[in-house]
Amino acid sequence: QSSVTLYGRVNTTVENQKVNNGSRTWVVQNNSSRFGLKGTEDIGGGLKASFNLESGFNSDTGAAASTFWGREAWVQLAGSFGAIRLGNITPESYFATADYVSMHNHDTGPSSDALYGGPFLNKNKVMYMLPAMGGFSMSVAMTAGEKVVKNGTDIGANYDAGPMHLGFGYSKQGAQSQWAARGLFEMGPVTLGGYFQRNDLGATTQNIWRLAGMYASGASEFHVNLGAANKGPKAGQWTLGYNYNLSKRTKVYTYYTKYDLNKDTAAADAEFSSLAFGVRHNF
Amino acid sequence: QSSVTLYGRVNTTVENQKVNNGSRTWVVQNNSSRFGLKGTEDIGGGLKASFNLESGFNSDTGAAASTFWGREAWVQLAGSFGAIRLGNITPESYFATADYVSMHNHDTGPSSDALYGGPFLNKNKVMYMLPAMGGFSMSVAMTAGEKVVKNGTDIGANYDAGPMHLGFGYSKQGAQSQWAARGLFEMGPVTLGGYFQRNDLGATTQNIWRLAGMYASGASEFHVNLGAANKGPKAGQWTLGYNYNLSKRTKVYTYYTKYDLNKDTAAADAEFSSLAFGVRHNF
Amino acid sequence: QSSVTLYGRVNTTVENQKVNNGSRTWVVQNNSSRFGLKGTEDIGGGLKASFNLESGFNSDTGAAASTFWGREAWVQLAGSFGAIRLGNITPESYFATADYVSMHNHDTGPSSDALYGGPFLNKNKVMYMLPAMGGFSMSVAMTAGEKVVKNGTDIGANYDAGPMHLGFGYSKQGAQSQWAARGLFEMGPVTLGGYFQRNDLGATTQNIWRLAGMYASGASEFHVNLGAANKGPKAGQWTLGYNYNLSKRTKVYTYYTKYDLNKDTAAADAEFSSLAFGVRHNF
Repeated sequence: QSSVTLYGRVNTTVENQKVNNGSRTWVVQNNSSRFGLKGTEDIGGGLKASFNLESGFNSDTGAAASTFWGREAWVQLAGSFGAIRLGNITPESYFATADYVSMHNHDTGPSSDALYGGPFLNKNKVMYMLPAMGGFSMSVAMTAGEKVVKNGTDIGANYDAGPMHLGFGYSKQGAQSQWAARGLFEMGPVTLGGYFQRNDLGATTQNIWRLAGMYASGASEFHVNLGAANKGPKAGQWTLGYNYNLSKRTKVYTYYTKYDLNKDTAAADAEFSSLAFGVRHNF
Repeated sequence: QSSVTLYGRVNTTVENQKVNNGSRTWVVQNNSSRFGLKGTEDIGGGLKASFNLESGFNSDTGAAASTFWGREAWVQLAGSFGAIRLGNITPESYFATADYVSMHNHDTGPSSDALYGGPFLNKNKVMYMLPAMGGFSMSVAMTAGEKVVKNGTDIGANYDAGPMHLGFGYSKQGAQSQWAARGLFEMGPVTLGGYFQRNDLGATTQNIWRLAGMYASGASEFHVNLGAANKGPKAGQWTLGYNYNLSKRTKVYTYYTKYDLNKDTAAADAEFSSLAFGVRHNF
Repeated sequence: QSSVTLYGRVNTTVENQKVNNGSRTWVVQNNSSRFGLKGTEDIGGGLKASFNLESGFNSDTGAAASTFWGREAWVQLAGSFGAIRLGNITPESYFATADYVSMHNHDTGPSSDALYGGPFLNKNKVMYMLPAMGGFSMSVAMTAGEKVVKNGTDIGANYDAGPMHLGFGYSKQGAQSQWAARGLFEMGPVTLGGYFQRNDLGATTQNIWRLAGMYASGASEFHVNLGAANKGPKAGQWTLGYNYNLSKRTKVYTYYTKYDLNKDTAAADAEFSSLAFGVRHNF
């Protein structure tokens, strides 16, 4: 009857991984594969109704995510007033910051950002999006704790001006809160991005940095991605990556990634490294 | 290859709820959201094969229903003989009665019928539908208990004559059974409906009443819905609702609903009330 | 945006079953119902990217399989070099042998092959398919045990020459391995097939035989299917079936099936028989 779009991403790597002092092992690994349904109804008078259901799955084992439509499950009304979205929604504070600069593999899988932290609120959400103003867009969301958890707030903002792309995210739940500021700059074949996050865990406050660079040449992309947290505990992560875009929808890629999530101890208790070869196919 | 239709409903409210003597809380609430796949093959000679898979999900949290295709999972052969349907099927006894008169929000969510009772048989089912005769249609279904539960029977019947719509439902499983008779009448802008149910729980027998009225004016619908059970325990429920149909597929709405499912005790142990604001989008 | 194909099979029987010395019971039964999403992108230069997600479900109860995309969840790149497939993949060793000769109801449900054994490897898989050479095709797959189970190997090969269809399967995981050789021959209205499997369980080695015959006449198919295992324990199974193809997509059918999975004891402790009537609809 109506036009529903089926879409998704299958993103799978074969990796040689080392966890702490364990022996290196070959594994097949999912990198945030997903599929979804979405659609928009043009109601007229500038009004549009839309919905999105999005489900994560493990492309290595076939298992669905523990919450089936855990990525997105919402209905939205949009008009000149902006838009109201209700339901389960991946935080805009995240899309505006950590996700935005993760260029080498869309912040998925073993090389995804292991440091970005703070309240990550998606369930029981009411989100209001301001009407787009020039290059500026912003959303504010409230999450209902429903007497089970604390109520929360999530804010995401983006500003695009030619080659400059700025973003800001804020989220708060109970005594915990975080904010992050992001920039990304396109300079011909080179793109540089990064964010700074201040993550208030209550007892301590973390500073988290992330820098990402891409050099694109034809179908090739060369990537570097670096991150660090100053405490809580002190941590570091880096990734070198290479993507070859077979088409807009399909790429083959490789990366080497390494992190230590607890540099405060000499023990190898939170270390990980991996050499990966993968295929990502969007549909 | 073949033509499969994807369809669904996202129906989400923001509600201010009060449970017993608890404090009022804002919650985001699912109202029987669902998605499904269906299709029909015209085999020729008057024969048609069809299927339906329908899955409930929580539009507030993204969780799938505990039985994924718990709403519908069936295959059907239809011809001049009527139709045979096999599988998991929402009872026709329910569609013909309680569901039919629940006009304000399709018997979904916190304002759904909290009193309608009796065996609700959907799994392991063989259903036979008689050929439509004038305005009369009827189905008889058997559910296999498979040595785990008792076998069951489910019957639904409908009769439509112009503005008059009558229905009957019966279900039985072991010592429990229920029957209900329903009427719905269209009188210009006003629609009035109701059912009476006799629910034999074995030890006691409940009488359950439901009355529903709608006044429609342009895109607006004003609703009232009242229900009562005389014992088992004694209970009452009422809802006032207002729908504004933005289109055939999309409405915004509000309702106030209240029930007490145990009027036999003075304690507030089964009371609930809610003021809701919502969006329902069919796709 | 892209073209995704939704497909599936609803295959449901009503059966009169007897388990060991229990009384006969009517049940509604799923026979490997499934639905899936698949798509192929023509990248150009002879290269194609494709994906497949396939989910089993119980058409009698509506329950999804315990692993949602447990049948298939993979991404593939194919070219003149053959094809590489990554993810969760039903073993080609099985498709080339036991599945291939199960003509009466596609190796599904209560009459599916209860004897075929050995490592059945689907998760965490890297599969390479050789380019097709005449009627010969072959695939080799490795499964990563990921320090949880042993690594494994799965090989499937097929050779088609007119009415003759040969196949071979091999799988190995740790100390267990199996190989099977299959033949299937089309002789006008008669098709005869079978396989021999050698299943090395470590302590013992099973020999398993399967023979299947079909006589087709118009829309009718008459089937016989026989299997035996010589030990581990000694077992036997047979099925008589009749299919009436209403169309290419839809059939009605009946079968009688019986097995004893432990002929080494006189006790009826692994016996089963069933008389089934069903509908299978592909979409």
